[in-house]
Amino acid sequence: MTGIALIGAGRMAKVHVASIIAAGAKIATIYDPVAEASKLLAAQTNAKVCYSAAEAMNDPSAEAIIIATSSDTHIELLYEAVKAKKPVLCEKPLSANYQEGIQFIRTIGDDAAKKICVGFNRRFDRGHASVRNGVHAGHIGRLEQLTITSRDPYPPPLEYIPRSGGLFRDMMIHDFDMARSIIQQPIISVTAHGSSIVDPEIGKLGDIDTASVTMIAEDGALITILNSRHCAFGFDQRIEAFGAKGMLVSDNPRQSGYTTYTSEYPGTSAPILEFFMERYGPSYTAEIQTFIACSREGKDMPINAIDGMMAAYLAEASTASLKHKKTITLTGLDQEFTNV
Amino acid sequence: MTGIALIGAGRMAKVHVASIIAAGAKIATIYDPVAEASKLLAAQTNAKVCYSAAEAMNDPSAEAIIIATSSDTHIELLYEAVKAKKPVLCEKPLSANYQEGIQFIRTIGDDAAKKICVGFNRRFDRGHASVRNGVHAGHIGRLEQLTITSRDPYPPPLEYIPRSGGLFRDMMIHDFDMARSIIQQPIISVTAHGSSIVDPEIGKLGDIDTASVTMIAEDGALITILNSRHCAFGFDQRIEAFGAKGMLVSDNPRQSGYTTYTSEYPGTSAPILEFFMERYGPSYTAEIQTFIACSREGKDMPINAIDGMMAAYLAEASTASLKHKKTITLTGLDQEFTNV
Amino acid sequence: MTGIALIGAGRMAKVHVASIIAAGAKIATIYDPVAEASKLLAAQTNAKVCYSAAEAMNDPSAEAIIIATSSDTHIELLYEAVKAKKPVLCEKPLSANYQEGIQFIRTIGDDAAKKICVGFNRRFDRGHASVRNGVHAGHIGRLEQLTITSRDPYPPPLEYIPRSGGLFRDMMIHDFDMARSIIQQPIISVTAHGSSIVDPEIGKLGDIDTASVTMIAEDGALITILNSRHCAFGFDQRIEAFGAKGMLVSDNPRQSGYTTYTSEYPGTSAPILEFFMERYGPSYTAEIQTFIACSREGKDMPINAIDGMMAAYLAEASTASLKHKKTITLTGLDQEFTNV
Amino acid sequence: MTGIALIGAGRMAKVHVASIIAAGAKIATIYDPVAEASKLLAAQTNAKVCYSAAEAMNDPSAEAIIIATSSDTHIELLYEAVKAKKPVLCEKPLSANYQEGIQFIRTIGDDAAKKICVGFNRRFDRGHASVRNGVHAGHIGRLEQLTITSRDPYPPPLEYIPRSGGLFRDMMIHDFDMARSIIQQPIISVTAHGSSIVDPEIGKLGDIDTASVTMIAEDGALITILNSRHCAFGFDQRIEAFGAKGMLVSDNPRQSGYTTYTSEYPGTSAPILEFFMERYGPSYTAEIQTFIACSREGKDMPINAIDGMMAAYLAEASTASLKHKKTITLTGLDQEFTNV
Repeated sequence: MTGIALIGAGRMAKVHVASIIAAGAKIATIYDPVAEASKLLAAQTNAKVCYSAAEAMNDPSAEAIIIATSSDTHIELLYEAVKAKKPVLCEKPLSANYQEGIQFIRTIGDDAAKKICVGFNRRFDRGHASVRNGVHAGHIGRLEQLTITSRDPYPPPLEYIPRSGGLFRDMMIHDFDMARSIIQQPIISVTAHGSSIVDPEIGKLGDIDTASVTMIAEDGALITILNSRHCAFGFDQRIEAFGAKGMLVSDNPRQSGYTTYTSEYPGTSAPILEFFMERYGPSYTAEIQTFIACSREGKDMPINAIDGMMAAYLAEASTASLKHKKTITLTGLDQEFTNV
Repeated sequence: MTGIALIGAGRMAKVHVASIIAAGAKIATIYDPVAEASKLLAAQTNAKVCYSAAEAMNDPSAEAIIIATSSDTHIELLYEAVKAKKPVLCEKPLSANYQEGIQFIRTIGDDAAKKICVGFNRRFDRGHASVRNGVHAGHIGRLEQLTITSRDPYPPPLEYIPRSGGLFRDMMIHDFDMARSIIQQPIISVTAHGSSIVDPEIGKLGDIDTASVTMIAEDGALITILNSRHCAFGFDQRIEAFGAKGMLVSDNPRQSGYTTYTSEYPGTSAPILEFFMERYGPSYTAEIQTFIACSREGKDMPINAIDGMMAAYLAEASTASLKHKKTITLTGLDQEFTNV
Repeated sequence: MTGIALIGAGRMAKVHVASIIAAGAKIATIYDPVAEASKLLAAQTNAKVCYSAAEAMNDPSAEAIIIATSSDTHIELLYEAVKAKKPVLCEKPLSANYQEGIQFIRTIGDDAAKKICVGFNRRFDRGHASVRNGVHAGHIGRLEQLTITSRDPYPPPLEYIPRSGGLFRDMMIHDFDMARSIIQQPIISVTAHGSSIVDPEIGKLGDIDTASVTMIAEDGALITILNSRHCAFGFDQRIEAFGAKGMLVSDNPRQSGYTTYTSEYPGTSAPILEFFMERYGPSYTAEIQTFIACSREGKDMPINAIDGMMAAYLAEASTASLKHKKTITLTGLDQEFTNV
Repeated sequence: MTGIALIGAGRMAKVHVASIIAAGAKIATIYDPVAEASKLLAAQTNAKVCYSAAEAMNDPSAEAIIIATSSDTHIELLYEAVKAKKPVLCEKPLSANYQEGIQFIRTIGDDAAKKICVGFNRRFDRGHASVRNGVHAGHIGRLEQLTITSRDPYPPPLEYIPRSGGLFRDMMIHDFDMARSIIQQPIISVTAHGSSIVDPEIGKLGDIDTASVTMIAEDGALITILNSRHCAFGFDQRIEAFGAKGMLVSDNPRQSGYTTYTSEYPGTSAPILEFFMERYGPSYTAEIQTFIACSREGKDMPINAIDGMMAAYLAEASTASLKHKKTITLTGLDQEFTNV
């Protein structure tokens, strides 16, 4: 029974606890700067409460590490975890500053980076995974157009906007990773458009709430990502992969197979799922299962720190494209996006 | 260009005219007891106005005959048409009295009966035909359960009820024919249930408005037909064929691909088609095309007078089953349903 | 934290354990005639292993009782549980012999019967519950036709057939309960048809594998239940409630929103859910949550032993209808179905 | 009965003839440079064969003019038609050279331009029109994102490519018009991306076969148009309008309500419609009906020559954006796109 060092005892940590137990693993050690939170979670899981991340990570009972703390602490904890020489799962992003992420990968090397799982849980969504697998299996021949739609049911609190890093780094980063995982080839240009049409207050804070990004892959395939911070009918999460032999779609699952036929509602389905815990709950569980299995077997992670860095890179390029109102040609990780 | 003798100049006749012309045929002669109606239709089609059905049918310019008059006139006109020795299309039923229909077939013989097309136009519906063809092609292996749902948007005028022959003879007859065409084997028993839950006035007139009929085919396959004289969301016309290898469904087509997603309507499709001219309009056209093609080539009709008689026989058995509250075992066309 | 006495440590018991813990309750005591099974489950749940059902039920740590043993033991355990004067959840049926079920209710009285939850878990299915609630809320006006389709992906082992009680008592009993819960009025007649078209071996064992039952409610509403022991495309579980103002449907949910569009598969959805643990897994959880909540609050169960008896009564009537090839008019619980 | 002067006797002219007659109008005169084509169509319609466009247009029996000739003849015929002072329906584009189109409007003036109907028949598509009407009726509040997908089943012959004007002018022009008709406000920038990933031969001819265009409306709404010259599963024609209160979709209608459920095809719908005559056949009819009605009543056309010019303008801007690899800010009709 794999022992996990759990760093963080907040909301995401609690989400992971159930998955860890369901996966047949146990919480071995736990650390959170708020000691009360650690103790509460430890009481339910029989874990050892630790008083530093290093203590929790290096305890012999811990065979793998899960980092589920706030974004600004990730990079420091990642360096600590690498020192512990144990498999790590870290929520995205590696760092709020993408240059730090690049530096981290360069410091630890690609082999170590591949042992670090980055929490792009949407890759485990059943419908999305079916599209990706279908594309890779050649069901639609050569991929020509990829469209990813991602709309949250409602915006985050306004006070979160300034420290979010902006829509591209905070929200669209999931879609950049999804695009990369499906397209599996270099992206050569990024063009971003956006506006604050949902809530002008978001615009006053220097961010956008509605965005469209077009990317071109090396072979000419066109990628379109549409984002909105608001969606009146739920959590709109769709993928459409169009190729030479057809199209694969991951549409929004519905809450049930309930449908109403009346003169006013002539065929009304049950609503789509509401937000990420409803839609992506099973994905979190699958992610933890995969992480624990790879940890046990000493295998590389299917989504690793290099993926985390590359998604951040596309977010950075999009941010620059929007700011400078021009297409960003991707020439390498050292590109100075701020001086294009 | 095949010349048609058109008997009747009312609503159904007008529906057929457009199909006849679209099929590359022409109206050669026309007869309707209301001379004004004949003249009006003749003016648009350059047809010869005749003053008896026999004159219209026997005119050398007419190579095939279409009977589109009221039900009570069919049997007499059919005998007349058989004398003219030309292919005939007759709206259902052969006769309001099913014994007359049996007598007619016995008189003219099976070979002649096969040259008479009976207007079960729903057989030509694209979705329904796909189900039938899929069953016959073996896509679902052995057919085990067949469910036909048929609901009109609103009941006929109350004054029509007494002369309708009752729901089984007037409405469900289409579904009996559909069942026979899909199942392609003898039906050995009929059990009917019904009530006048839509409109008690229909009950007072001795009829039902809601019905369920269960039939058993020779090999044990179960057939269920559900009818209602009223449907709030349109013309509900569906088939579900379930077999050893799967299920084939003909669902209600919608008016368009329009769908609304709002918090109140979380995925509302466009309405289904409203009534028979909207839903079965293309079926009427296909029926006329098939009739004209078979007429030109001297072929047997795919739906002939024997089919018309057999559907009437099942309607008769259902009427008796409901009346006597028992299952009717089908032992032959001479069965006295009224004395079971 | 409500303590549960768990009687049985087999497959269904294990299914319930996760739901019990998720509902914030604990397994207090456990009894299974196979002591090894008890011990294994106790080790995972910290429950006390007992050596008789009475001991487990009467232990002070147990506040409610769940009976998850084989059907033939239910009635005896139910009498035992009533003596313990604690809320009970029992898997269906009350008894393989429906007269014993009637006798049980008469013995304990209606008030006690209402504290016994019977495990018709499908009532908690999200789509099915939406139909029921929509009907009761009047969304489709007066209910006129109710159609329930229930098809298993594959038949039980042939050796199970003789002790199953037959398709109506073993399988359709869920649908009888569902029909009752939606229709909420007396059922006045039952007509059953069936055949062994899926597997003639089932027929040789005196049972059917394909069935259609028509029931009439007091107000004339028509109820149709279609069952099959085999379904090539998964676990086909649907309800269609048709009324004066429209139709409510609970269709089969799909495994995801994945859809394929190619020239060969021009719009192919992800498969439907496979069998009851996939489709009704969330229903089991909701059932346990409801049972624990009602137990804590001392409330009557929403599905109680009287419902269990009434569903068994309809199964009995259907069995008699099929055997005697006639409609059974329901005149009271004492009716001798075997001598109609 | 409105008399029509039909200029052209080719494929589109034949399509219109049936609609003209169905709309209760008649072909009064007909002209095609190929006299044989004129005569053939005249024989079926009793029209007068003319030997110049001017003769056909100016004949007193013609009350309205339909121009259905090849694109390169439109502008000259339009000037001729304006001289005849009769309502005109002209297939798109006004001119292959968009500057000529601007010049035409400036010459004849806006009032005259509004009496010229331009054949953007897709506006009459039932699903597309429902989206447009729903947006204008405020069903989704403020429009934030508009996505139009338009994919042909197969590319035109390679020899057509060089004289097509390129994908934006030849194919996406319909989508530019659709976007304008829904968005109803100025478009301030256009960014085009494209590749020849379907067929490299198209690339060698200087054109693209796969395109993505992003436009920004004055209020910040983002418009995305996706085009492909090839689609393996039919004629993919969809619109998705997303706004503050929800989303309106026009999805591809299917050939029927036929669906297959087997273990291999677990819910396969009938194919979508194949190409424009199948999908947009009813739109052509509605277009002709609207044109004839507006002609009779002397009303402005709902889609007029100014719309034709504006769609061409967006096509021109997209062509320039792709060529110069930059966003085109729309500053006015006189903008020199070739020297941005």
